[in-house]
Amino acid sequence: MKIIPLGGLDAIGKNMTVFECDGDMILDDAGLMFPDDDHPGIDLILPDYTYVLENAHRLKGIFITHGHEDHTGSLPYLYKDLDRPVPIYGTKLTLGLIEGKFAEHRIKNAKLVEIKPGDRVKLGCIEAEFFAVNHSIPGSVGIFYQTPAGNVLHTGDFKLDQSPVDGVHTDFAALSRYNEIGVDLMLSDSTNSMNNTFTPSESEVGKALMPIIAQAKGRVIVASFASHIHRLQQICDAAVANGRKVVVTGRSMIQNTEIARRLGYLKINDEDLVDAYDLKGIPPEKIVVMCTGSQGEPLSALSRIAGGSHKTVSIEEGDTVIISATPVPGNEKAVTRIVNMLAKIGADVYDKRRALVHVSGHASAEELKIVLSIVRPVHFMPVHGEATHLRAHAKLAEATGVDPKNIFILENGESLELTSRGVKFGETVQSGVVFVDGLSVGDTSQVVLDDRSQLASQGFAAVAAAVSYKGKRICGDVLVEMRGITGGDDPYLVEEAVRRVAASLKKQLEQGGKDTELKRAARDSLSSVLWERTKQRPMVVTSILDI
Amino acid sequence: MKIIPLGGLDAIGKNMTVFECDGDMILDDAGLMFPDDDHPGIDLILPDYTYVLENAHRLKGIFITHGHEDHTGSLPYLYKDLDRPVPIYGTKLTLGLIEGKFAEHRIKNAKLVEIKPGDRVKLGCIEAEFFAVNHSIPGSVGIFYQTPAGNVLHTGDFKLDQSPVDGVHTDFAALSRYNEIGVDLMLSDSTNSMNNTFTPSESEVGKALMPIIAQAKGRVIVASFASHIHRLQQICDAAVANGRKVVVTGRSMIQNTEIARRLGYLKINDEDLVDAYDLKGIPPEKIVVMCTGSQGEPLSALSRIAGGSHKTVSIEEGDTVIISATPVPGNEKAVTRIVNMLAKIGADVYDKRRALVHVSGHASAEELKIVLSIVRPVHFMPVHGEATHLRAHAKLAEATGVDPKNIFILENGESLELTSRGVKFGETVQSGVVFVDGLSVGDTSQVVLDDRSQLASQGFAAVAAAVSYKGKRICGDVLVEMRGITGGDDPYLVEEAVRRVAASLKKQLEQGGKDTELKRAARDSLSSVLWERTKQRPMVVTSILDI
Repeated sequence: MKIIPLGGLDAIGKNMTVFECDGDMILDDAGLMFPDDDHPGIDLILPDYTYVLENAHRLKGIFITHGHEDHTGSLPYLYKDLDRPVPIYGTKLTLGLIEGKFAEHRIKNAKLVEIKPGDRVKLGCIEAEFFAVNHSIPGSVGIFYQTPAGNVLHTGDFKLDQSPVDGVHTDFAALSRYNEIGVDLMLSDSTNSMNNTFTPSESEVGKALMPIIAQAKGRVIVASFASHIHRLQQICDAAVANGRKVVVTGRSMIQNTEIARRLGYLKINDEDLVDAYDLKGIPPEKIVVMCTGSQGEPLSALSRIAGGSHKTVSIEEGDTVIISATPVPGNEKAVTRIVNMLAKIGADVYDKRRALVHVSGHASAEELKIVLSIVRPVHFMPVHGEATHLRAHAKLAEATGVDPKNIFILENGESLELTSRGVKFGETVQSGVVFVDGLSVGDTSQVVLDDRSQLASQGFAAVAAAVSYKGKRICGDVLVEMRGITGGDDPYLVEEAVRRVAASLKKQLEQGGKDTELKRAARDSLSSVLWERTKQRPMVVTSILDI
Repeated sequence: MKIIPLGGLDAIGKNMTVFECDGDMILDDAGLMFPDDDHPGIDLILPDYTYVLENAHRLKGIFITHGHEDHTGSLPYLYKDLDRPVPIYGTKLTLGLIEGKFAEHRIKNAKLVEIKPGDRVKLGCIEAEFFAVNHSIPGSVGIFYQTPAGNVLHTGDFKLDQSPVDGVHTDFAALSRYNEIGVDLMLSDSTNSMNNTFTPSESEVGKALMPIIAQAKGRVIVASFASHIHRLQQICDAAVANGRKVVVTGRSMIQNTEIARRLGYLKINDEDLVDAYDLKGIPPEKIVVMCTGSQGEPLSALSRIAGGSHKTVSIEEGDTVIISATPVPGNEKAVTRIVNMLAKIGADVYDKRRALVHVSGHASAEELKIVLSIVRPVHFMPVHGEATHLRAHAKLAEATGVDPKNIFILENGESLELTSRGVKFGETVQSGVVFVDGLSVGDTSQVVLDDRSQLASQGFAAVAAAVSYKGKRICGDVLVEMRGITGGDDPYLVEEAVRRVAASLKKQLEQGGKDTELKRAARDSLSSVLWERTKQRPMVVTSILDI
């Protein structure tokens, strides 16, 4: 049996792992990652799944552990690249969310197969058993793979919440049973491996929300992750308990609330929900607004409310805002910006620093060790994390008694081979990242990103000149356009640039220079002027027209 | 008396406050701020000090509370703009660090006046008394201003460290004395006003460093802030106590260590310091490398060590790295990147999450309340912080008994007027930010920044065409250059763009269009092609040459 992670081992995001046995292949999760400042202008980042496409004829099915985009987001792209509707297995909510995404991508031929915890699916020589885990989205499962070569347990994303909002615990009994059957290799979630002790229960958030909403005088606005149905349930419960109606705003919040209610995951009566357009006439102290924007996204509902540009929801001094989330690394400043806007308005802002209005959905060190101790895997491979998380998780495994020789830290694209004789490194396959930028998937090169970075810090100058090589002369004026350059609108600078470019072109023309020489002369002389006058090195593009 | 903050009330950074009394003016701090992703390509951000320059004839002196750049960094720029060497008052280390900066700026006529805690300086009708405060840099002071209109206390940046590394406490006796004299208005540091309880003592960091270094097997590399002399002292002490030599690397670390040793603030024997170039032959377990790069700066010593490109310091599996700092907001991802590089090498990395290897230099809520209780100011104005910090600090003041009517939250440029009848809002003066970009100070407009942001996410296309208005024809080829555009190197896209631009220009020429019409036609047709083919909206610049 081969285990090939194509994503998820260099970052918290874009999880995707290939399992192969005797010619049969299945895919375990197909996630994406959201870009950061290192990827200017990029919309999404996918794992490079070339290996899956090259072996697509062997792909028997896709197992999805839960509905978060870092586990499902590649599916629409992968599905369009596959030449047949490969079955996708997931729980009801997971499939509901995937259906929503597929509809946006106009994918109609999807083959979605609902599974429940306890179900077993046999695809070729790989038999998968799904077991319930507790995570920050309902319907999360881990997978126990049984094959002739041995057994592999993948926890999926999980925590050990002992008072879960929907009553669903991570299934200790199943884990114990797998231990009895024998787990040759375990893959486990490393996201919080560097957090000591325990992740608090999701129900603690409900306890924190209740008194805040009870004591609030004006509007209450709660921003959270749209897919965090347990959180939304607790927000709704606290609102109703305090005689307030719930207003849902923000595209993904509206969509997910609708899906979760339809599938029975979110319970709130129709009369307790108010459409944002029907808000007029309801006093502020009678509503809780549940919205997107917990990451400070500039176009989100919370941003628009804070900036006074939301169509229906306003905010005023004395209102209460709860940021029921934690900023994903890289979003800290965006969140801070909104919190400051809200503070200036005079809103009473609660975030994680002030009250337990958010807890993580991932197991901390003590929980990870408990699962290791129950399962007692022979071999261990930490997954879902950056280099530091994987190494911290490896140390936890060692502490629970896993032989250090049996712990494997992989990079994306590396593989493990599991046989009756044990586990060893296998071949490395193509891996990496693919950028989605507008319509384009995979055409954004590093050159484009490097150019954007240079443009972001320095701007550019474009020079155009018409010349006659025959007449050895410049025809008409030399034109210089500058953008993003400090001082680039200074007419004296432009004038000097034109003069010096013209002089250098003239010299080259007299010496019989052609396009290459003229372009280089124009670029060099323009760069020199800009460096001398501004100490900046903007990008320079040259257009020499031969007429 | 007038108090006019020109910086520090919208951010933690660029602190600068004007005090005026009866025609006399003094400046309290002159800091800068480092730019973030919202300011692409910008080197530094200064407060707009136009008001100071317009009233420069009245400026009697500049008081600097301590040597951090958010309190001193504007000085070189301000000094160059003033037509005479206005005296700068500060403690020995503060002036030593300013001297270093002035030397870099080739400022030679500076008038630096050393003061000690307890000293009084009378400039016109403003009398200032300096008192010791404890902060993350030695030689920090607060200032008590006495004027005919009333008394104002400015705490400066401070914490209440009860076991300070250099034995210097925040001067409770002085604060009590000012209370007795009467404090009409207090300005106090809000940086940590949202942290509950107490900031731990700096000496706790020493206690955490000691066992880590004692147990380390290979090299120990400690990254910290170059100006944090107390921290450097503790790193040196822990190294020497464990029989290791200290190697200093990174430009500012070398410079500050040298200044602090020369002025007697940092104590380490010559034989315990090793030049980075003399490292050869010393076994790794006998050195501690003290370096810059705690913020993940890509060109810093730590980055170069982690990347294997440092000239003299290498790193290998089993070495220990201590990040003795916390990422400034916005730098989290850069620090994470380096920590992951180090983890992959197999280094044992300690940061704030794993051990108390960093504490803040700013007072938390309980400390702020203690100072408020000792001083018992009649009026209060929180300073040094974003909107949320200022408002949290205002609530603390209220909790200690300051009348809410007497608490003033200002924006930069707003002013307070203090008279014997009380405090009220005064006139608003010019304020804002000034960008330093290369040689230019203040010439970077918002247009330039907006252009850079657009270029960063979308790239640009430049189109050039030579035309004859008379002949109503295009002369030669139309040229299109694209940079930072996904698919911009696709020859079919370029070809189509050229064809469509040429067609639209031709049409305009036939209709008698001139430069404006042709430019618009070229831009519109090129934008359309790019949107249709790539769903991107890059910037477009057009050069129409008339020949």
